[in-house]
Amino acid sequence: MTWEDASDFLADFAELSAIGATARGGVERQAATAEDGLTRAWLTRWFDENGFAVRVDGIGNLIGLVEFDPDAPYVLVGSHLDSQPLAGRFDGAYGVLAGAHAVREARDRFQALGARPPFNLAVVDWFNEEGSRFKPSMMGSAVHIGRLPIETALATEDPRGVTVQQALQAIDGVGRDAIPEVASYAELHIEQGRSLEDDGITIGVVASTWSAHKYTVLVRGEQAHTGSAAMADRRDALLAASHLVVAVNELVGHFPVEQMHTSVGELYVRPNSPVVVAREVELLIDIRAIESTMLEEAFRLLEQRMREIDLKCGTNTEVVTTSVWGSGAFLEAGVELVEQSADALGLSHQRVLTLAGHDATNMKEQVPTVLMFVPSVAGISHSELEYTTDADLVHGLQLLADVVVKLASGALAGS
Amino acid sequence: MTWEDASDFLADFAELSAIGATARGGVERQAATAEDGLTRAWLTRWFDENGFAVRVDGIGNLIGLVEFDPDAPYVLVGSHLDSQPLAGRFDGAYGVLAGAHAVREARDRFQALGARPPFNLAVVDWFNEEGSRFKPSMMGSAVHIGRLPIETALATEDPRGVTVQQALQAIDGVGRDAIPEVASYAELHIEQGRSLEDDGITIGVVASTWSAHKYTVLVRGEQAHTGSAAMADRRDALLAASHLVVAVNELVGHFPVEQMHTSVGELYVRPNSPVVVAREVELLIDIRAIESTMLEEAFRLLEQRMREIDLKCGTNTEVVTTSVWGSGAFLEAGVELVEQSADALGLSHQRVLTLAGHDATNMKEQVPTVLMFVPSVAGISHSELEYTTDADLVHGLQLLADVVVKLASGALAGS
Repeated sequence: MTWEDASDFLADFAELSAIGATARGGVERQAATAEDGLTRAWLTRWFDENGFAVRVDGIGNLIGLVEFDPDAPYVLVGSHLDSQPLAGRFDGAYGVLAGAHAVREARDRFQALGARPPFNLAVVDWFNEEGSRFKPSMMGSAVHIGRLPIETALATEDPRGVTVQQALQAIDGVGRDAIPEVASYAELHIEQGRSLEDDGITIGVVASTWSAHKYTVLVRGEQAHTGSAAMADRRDALLAASHLVVAVNELVGHFPVEQMHTSVGELYVRPNSPVVVAREVELLIDIRAIESTMLEEAFRLLEQRMREIDLKCGTNTEVVTTSVWGSGAFLEAGVELVEQSADALGLSHQRVLTLAGHDATNMKEQVPTVLMFVPSVAGISHSELEYTTDADLVHGLQLLADVVVKLASGALAGS
Repeated sequence: MTWEDASDFLADFAELSAIGATARGGVERQAATAEDGLTRAWLTRWFDENGFAVRVDGIGNLIGLVEFDPDAPYVLVGSHLDSQPLAGRFDGAYGVLAGAHAVREARDRFQALGARPPFNLAVVDWFNEEGSRFKPSMMGSAVHIGRLPIETALATEDPRGVTVQQALQAIDGVGRDAIPEVASYAELHIEQGRSLEDDGITIGVVASTWSAHKYTVLVRGEQAHTGSAAMADRRDALLAASHLVVAVNELVGHFPVEQMHTSVGELYVRPNSPVVVAREVELLIDIRAIESTMLEEAFRLLEQRMREIDLKCGTNTEVVTTSVWGSGAFLEAGVELVEQSADALGLSHQRVLTLAGHDATNMKEQVPTVLMFVPSVAGISHSELEYTTDADLVHGLQLLADVVVKLASGALAGS
């Protein structure tokens, strides 16, 4: 890959990052908002200008195709263009744009050689990876692999009652195309943690995912007047929920350092009036760990704390939904393929685990899948302060282009 | 007052309670919602049918007038028809309807005697006493006494950005009438606490208000990925806010039992996404106590806890607004007047403090004001489970009618 290509990539990335840009260098382009629509229109134009055929499926996955053989399946490369609220500009968008440039580069290399590889190439922007507006996250890829029925996905409402279908139609984002047969999948992403930076390594080759459990919890109390109700008579759902948020945080103390991450990021108070003791709080608990067994142990500890808190606050706390993502290894042959490409390019690399979910986590259930990371400065993500250096962005792109050439040439075929 | 009058009152109260009725026997009629509009229309019709002249002022205070002498000032009686979300049917609405019936009864007594008292009579439904949709609470009476500029009140937005002016216009609730000169004010309310029930007393004569301090607090952290950010790197605003909610609750332990009430009823998480560590939480702290000095001491303790929590969580907590309601005695002559009426009617009574704010708290800054309570079963309020017996409702009405007759006859004039 020449310097001109890298500079063209960085210029495109700067242009893309201007869409939905925020004051502190981030972006806000939640799924199927106007900003997401503008970003998708930008990518569609890029596909057109670079000779990629454009396809959109029924859940808004946006795909650009480079066909060598009409009967051959595709090597698919991509990530997602949607973002969290006040998010960084790298999470997802880097992987989609690098995918587009890597596919173009691979196509040009094959054409320069007069070669017709056994697989076609495609780039994808998966719809709604983030799940901030419409739950669950990784929606587009979940529909694609059949894990989530498309009817369920389209009927999903945001907090204002707008459905995915309505929101997608408003940005002209619903298509009727089928995604062609996929032979293998590659995704490049920023690390969103700091293991690569801490160790001074350029490429993370994802060997496995952490396990994640997510619980929707309802804490039920009773409404009362904040002024006049006797303290002893109150059954304060927000007080109990606050004890629970602290308890979730303290869970990590029972396990080895940095082998478990816990958080509550979403919480609703009802009725949320200044002079009413809350009758109900709904909150989402997110617990991730290296081993599934640690999550089971954490949940036992948490259930015990819930009973203690209910006893103290006169509340009734119930886990109403549980989502489980088991830990899972990526294909060893895929990990080795990425390691070989990194070695060939002279890029330092190490095997890493991913704590964050990615569309690759869905895709690896269906086809041979590789997932690669470049460093995040200070491990910051889901924040406007997210940052990856230009040099690392280009290293990742060079690696991805090499991996795409190998996959299109038949690496991992039959794995 | 005859049994027929009481039965007419209870029938009217049942009709009124059907507007905005909820499943568990409560009502939901937040300020300037459609349900508030229906309740106001019901009262307007009642005024018309009973020969009261109807007036509406620029902030939506709705008034019914009974005039004896066009040059005389008015004895004003009332409370509010708006409610909290999922609220009880007694809070406010009881006082307005009892006021209307008491004024009608007083008028009829004067007419039966062929007497023309020195003061006219009026009933008021103060706009937005509750403050759940539009802050601050006690808005209509605050504008009336000049504590809150009407322009500020009309421009106040609810959480969806709808202004008071827009919402009031949508229910045809903005008028152009001036409220005539007020000579004295009387308000009847349910206790919203359990001191009367605990002591087996029928009437509470409010001698003083508790002090109340309200603080809007911003807890600032930094967004991060709930999965991948290292626990040690997080600056979790919701975790800090949860510690703060617990700290607010624990404040009461530093003071004698039931001499201080503390709560957090309203809390907003930003961005409130399941996979983002919160960057900011806004919450409202409500602290009330018998003595202002206790509130000052409580705030010192709370500030110290805030600094400890910030140190622990890497957050930055700031008190952005403070509202102070000092404790205040009601007019001794007014308290004695109510006691005399209760004695005359054979109703047991005792002096009480009010922990809740009432429109009477505003009115007492301007004119001689009396505030009376009837018991709340189990002290429950701001809840669908709020309940006062029919017998106590009628006792309160009888007392109020007697007080109105005394006030119209000149009691407290010149106080």
